Amino acid sequence: MVRNYCKFPNKFTLAVIICEIIILVFFGVFVRYDWEVGMPKPLNKNYTEVHAKETAEEHVEHYYSLFQDIHIMMFIGFGFLMTFLKRYGFSSVGMNFFIAAFVLQWQTIIHGWIDTFEYYETLIESDFAAAAVLISFGAVLGKVSPIQLLIMAAMEIVFYEGNIKIVIGYIGATDIGDSMTVHTFGAYFGLMVAWVLYKKEVHDAEEKEGSVYQSDIFAMIGTIFLWICWPSFNSGTAVDEGRVRAIVNTYYSLTASVITTFAISSLVDKKNRFNMVHVQNSTLAGGVAIGSVADMIIQPWAAILTGMVAGVVSVLGYKFLTPYLSTRLKLHDTCGVHNLHGMPGVISGLGSILAAGISYPYLYENGLTKIFGDEAMDTSLNYRAGMQAACLGVTLGIAMFGGLMTGAVLKIPIFDHPIGEQIFDDEDYWIIPVDESHHRPAVDGEEMGPTFSKI
Amino acid sequence: MVRNYCKFPNKFTLAVIICEIIILVFFGVFVRYDWEVGMPKPLNKNYTEVHAKETAEEHVEHYYSLFQDIHIMMFIGFGFLMTFLKRYGFSSVGMNFFIAAFVLQWQTIIHGWIDTFEYYETLIESDFAAAAVLISFGAVLGKVSPIQLLIMAAMEIVFYEGNIKIVIGYIGATDIGDSMTVHTFGAYFGLMVAWVLYKKEVHDAEEKEGSVYQSDIFAMIGTIFLWICWPSFNSGTAVDEGRVRAIVNTYYSLTASVITTFAISSLVDKKNRFNMVHVQNSTLAGGVAIGSVADMIIQPWAAILTGMVAGVVSVLGYKFLTPYLSTRLKLHDTCGVHNLHGMPGVISGLGSILAAGISYPYLYENGLTKIFGDEAMDTSLNYRAGMQAACLGVTLGIAMFGGLMTGAVLKIPIFDHPIGEQIFDDEDYWIIPVDESHHRPAVDGEEMGPTFSKI
Amino acid sequence: MVRNYCKFPNKFTLAVIICEIIILVFFGVFVRYDWEVGMPKPLNKNYTEVHAKETAEEHVEHYYSLFQDIHIMMFIGFGFLMTFLKRYGFSSVGMNFFIAAFVLQWQTIIHGWIDTFEYYETLIESDFAAAAVLISFGAVLGKVSPIQLLIMAAMEIVFYEGNIKIVIGYIGATDIGDSMTVHTFGAYFGLMVAWVLYKKEVHDAEEKEGSVYQSDIFAMIGTIFLWICWPSFNSGTAVDEGRVRAIVNTYYSLTASVITTFAISSLVDKKNRFNMVHVQNSTLAGGVAIGSVADMIIQPWAAILTGMVAGVVSVLGYKFLTPYLSTRLKLHDTCGVHNLHGMPGVISGLGSILAAGISYPYLYENGLTKIFGDEAMDTSLNYRAGMQAACLGVTLGIAMFGGLMTGAVLKIPIFDHPIGEQIFDDEDYWIIPVDESHHRPAVDGEEMGPTFSKI
Repeated sequence: MVRNYCKFPNKFTLAVIICEIIILVFFGVFVRYDWEVGMPKPLNKNYTEVHAKETAEEHVEHYYSLFQDIHIMMFIGFGFLMTFLKRYGFSSVGMNFFIAAFVLQWQTIIHGWIDTFEYYETLIESDFAAAAVLISFGAVLGKVSPIQLLIMAAMEIVFYEGNIKIVIGYIGATDIGDSMTVHTFGAYFGLMVAWVLYKKEVHDAEEKEGSVYQSDIFAMIGTIFLWICWPSFNSGTAVDEGRVRAIVNTYYSLTASVITTFAISSLVDKKNRFNMVHVQNSTLAGGVAIGSVADMIIQPWAAILTGMVAGVVSVLGYKFLTPYLSTRLKLHDTCGVHNLHGMPGVISGLGSILAAGISYPYLYENGLTKIFGDEAMDTSLNYRAGMQAACLGVTLGIAMFGGLMTGAVLKIPIFDHPIGEQIFDDEDYWIIPVDESHHRPAVDGEEMGPTFSKI
Repeated sequence: MVRNYCKFPNKFTLAVIICEIIILVFFGVFVRYDWEVGMPKPLNKNYTEVHAKETAEEHVEHYYSLFQDIHIMMFIGFGFLMTFLKRYGFSSVGMNFFIAAFVLQWQTIIHGWIDTFEYYETLIESDFAAAAVLISFGAVLGKVSPIQLLIMAAMEIVFYEGNIKIVIGYIGATDIGDSMTVHTFGAYFGLMVAWVLYKKEVHDAEEKEGSVYQSDIFAMIGTIFLWICWPSFNSGTAVDEGRVRAIVNTYYSLTASVITTFAISSLVDKKNRFNMVHVQNSTLAGGVAIGSVADMIIQPWAAILTGMVAGVVSVLGYKFLTPYLSTRLKLHDTCGVHNLHGMPGVISGLGSILAAGISYPYLYENGLTKIFGDEAMDTSLNYRAGMQAACLGVTLGIAMFGGLMTGAVLKIPIFDHPIGEQIFDDEDYWIIPVDESHHRPAVDGEEMGPTFSKI
Repeated sequence: MVRNYCKFPNKFTLAVIICEIIILVFFGVFVRYDWEVGMPKPLNKNYTEVHAKETAEEHVEHYYSLFQDIHIMMFIGFGFLMTFLKRYGFSSVGMNFFIAAFVLQWQTIIHGWIDTFEYYETLIESDFAAAAVLISFGAVLGKVSPIQLLIMAAMEIVFYEGNIKIVIGYIGATDIGDSMTVHTFGAYFGLMVAWVLYKKEVHDAEEKEGSVYQSDIFAMIGTIFLWICWPSFNSGTAVDEGRVRAIVNTYYSLTASVITTFAISSLVDKKNRFNMVHVQNSTLAGGVAIGSVADMIIQPWAAILTGMVAGVVSVLGYKFLTPYLSTRLKLHDTCGVHNLHGMPGVISGLGSILAAGISYPYLYENGLTKIFGDEAMDTSLNYRAGMQAACLGVTLGIAMFGGLMTGAVLKIPIFDHPIGEQIFDDEDYWIIPVDESHHRPAVDGEEMGPTFSKI
């Protein structure tokens, strides 16, 4: 049995302290309250115009409850969704907590450097960035050490912010629910990292890759909070009627993906039983698939159709594509983020090309510029559709390139890539309560943590 | 051992797909965004007058955080409350998820047909309808197949919308927290379904009807989120000062039912121990019992008194009435919805008769019409009290009639009524992780789902 | 084996009923709706001025979503945080539920008597009071009977309200996030109660004091909801830009304490593993430590620094100080509230002395009086700093004195202090499902509750 925990820990602590000191210095020099408002200034182009005269308290009323929903998605949603692994629950919810908190600070720096220093307190934007990293985490869950995860997060944010600067800032695409910039980006970035880090050993750990009855119910806490709060994610930075549409469209798309997930999950099982993996994940695909077009005028029926397609594609992905990728392409995707975020994100991008292609100004009355930006009235349908296509292509390219680079860095031996029994197992990373009846048997003579986790 | 799962699944998938196509066509033909506002338009009569000049963003600020609370109640609250069953957790939280999502779409159609096409995007109203179905689900939990549940939901919504049209639309009663139209209706509908479907076998499955230590804690997640969000349920469609009163009254009634639940639960046990069933359910009775009068001027002391009475009645119901109904009347009520929703809902209806009977106009200053409708100033105290009594009576009648009809339909053999070991057991309906130490032993040579639920 | 449950229960029921009747009478005589607004009127001095013309609905929009977050903290947050104990989960979440609901009513009476009858419907203030009691509960968790807990809550609220009257009302200190008046107060009050009630037996129950794998994950539900909702706690009663600053500062402080908690937790373990106790608790220390200064102009970097210091102090406290207090000073602190609430609360008080000492009027432009009260422009920096110091000192004094008095009362034998096997064990207080594989083995011939907790 090979154990490398004697090497890892001081490195982790050291790396965290270095990062945190950089962050502290940066904040000390550059970050101040925004006097007029003080909180999340979305990147949305119409922000200044629309909210210029908002007082501080109006600002809180306008954003805060949606912001809190998005926070619940990051910390409860993603954290508990990943607790399905029977022996990796502490790491799932714990490292999710750590990484999300780290990104909330780190993104502020990177965003300041890459974009401008103007939007420092964009707390909602920081949550979106955390989502991208947590999606990538899903692809490598159980197969990276804490320090690898920290480095992945730090690097991913650079590529993520660069991509946003290009596709939203320069190209001028619209992606209100971040289905391309967050979901597609996070998924393909994580998949490339997983592909580079692939080790045959992961198949030996298949027994640990499963769930137990209770861990599947814990995961449902994550699923359902993600599902409930998703309309806030897609509408958080939308304005005026666009915000209402983003809520309504996301709501209908999500209900449709729940319904089709159950129908198809039952269909693809020999005994027509439901599969918890599908219920935990594919039910959310509608929220991803509607994201890029959520504030556009697509009507509720199109939102339902989008959710149905996403649910079907996602379940079929879990059933047929994930095993294929794992065994043939050496692409092991622990949480199946390709099925929940990757493909539905691409669907959303394609949908946004279509919706932009029919974005006739009369449809939007005088609201076209609120969706497509100030210059929208001067562009053609084809131009607007083209920009959406460019956004999807560039995002896929940067995500995959960034993932490959990051994977290569993580392979450096100093970062303690988990091996053998460390895969899908909390034991080397957490003090585990001894608990003989509950999946945490003591292993051959190894010293365990104390019985009570108190001291 | 009789297994009928070979027959059930294609039916379920087929039925779901048919329903979803109907919904999609209907939405495509009839449902459009509401240009001015776009989201939940409550049925409240004063709605148009009060909010006519609201912008889209004001609308979001006015409703959205309450709407999200109600969503939490439907999906987290009801879903986890039912996970107390030791071998039925997947179905409890999973089928709750499916049925609620289905009703959110289905109610839009039925509401459109029965009422008008004007209120299509009434998302809060859809959640209320989901609540009625989920309450009925509680009465038959563990004793119906997925396709039976789908049909029950589809039929119940028809009766539910018909009842609302009659008691609110025609009779003109007031029921701000839906204690009659949702809680009483859902409970007695479900009880009648349970009564029609009663099989002696259910008593043989008593061992599976219990909880385990962890499943009772999962259920508390549901209880507490229901408890926290209940003021939003009762105030969601209230206006002006009535909304504040609905929040404050519900809050005090709920605290009182918690306090009396603990006191009486301890009292009725021989060893004076607390009973988790009471704590999970009777603590919420105050939220139901205050519902119909929540926005009226009853003062906090009356809210506290209402909560106390509801808590006592509910605990005594679990202790004495439920076993009696089960053994003598062949009325088996899995979650005891009669004690949580049925009797407290009737208490609320009676309370609303009383409160309407003393609804002197001077008490409400100029607010009487906001509670009792535009024509309230032209009606007498007796008239207003009479309308509340009519509402309670009609609701009970339609609920019981609807439940009997629905139960009769569900008895048709094609709908795979669970038998024998299928009762209170996920095993035939879900792929279950093999987990020897945790209440899911493999049963005599039967083939199990894969160890890891991933593929 | 000594069992005293035959004596306890009627007492508990009797005590609860007496309290509830007192409350009901009091509400009947004194409490009425506030006609203009109706809901939480914070004690904040600028309240009337700022919100005088607010309508009822604006009031809901202004407070309600933050109030709901704080409610989540009290009932989900504290309730589940304490479920880490392997055999005390029912009491943790159940008694938390009961005590919090009781305080929400009881505080209204005591607040009315001690302060004025003007602020009756201050629902947010009631939640703050509940927080103080729940923190004290953490110190004595598993070591007090239900009736002891009820009496502790009833007495603590008297000292708590008296302290607030003195330090906020008379001294005029500012403590927007209640780090001194709630966290410091609750922690030192509870520690003194624990010290008076100390019994050597508690060390014999060490085996039960630990967690199991799943109970640690349940506790994370509490941790993360506390973490997410903490900005609402600290900003709930703040006004204008101060509210935005309270949100932003708390957010950054909390992220910083997460990051340093993981770094230091790994550092202090021999094998550099993370410790769940630290992750469950110390990650929240930043929310406490920033509380007293959250609405002041300290800039984000100072918030991050505060969170870092709090995280480090808290982890070191769990690692070194808690065992020392327990073994040397006979001060057994079950949840380590000294590390999560006590020391971080003192840090916050010290921070507020410092921040008041540099509260130059030009820094706040015309906002100084919104933080330090109407007379702030007439006081010196030293005076303002002195008042903060007085607040910290007086709070510590009253908390410790109140805790000692309360502990002495709880020692009266009639209150059934838990002994022997009752410590850290639900068994005498709850009907427990028989569940052989799951940490609830039947003990030598003792009669158990029914297998199914239904009847």
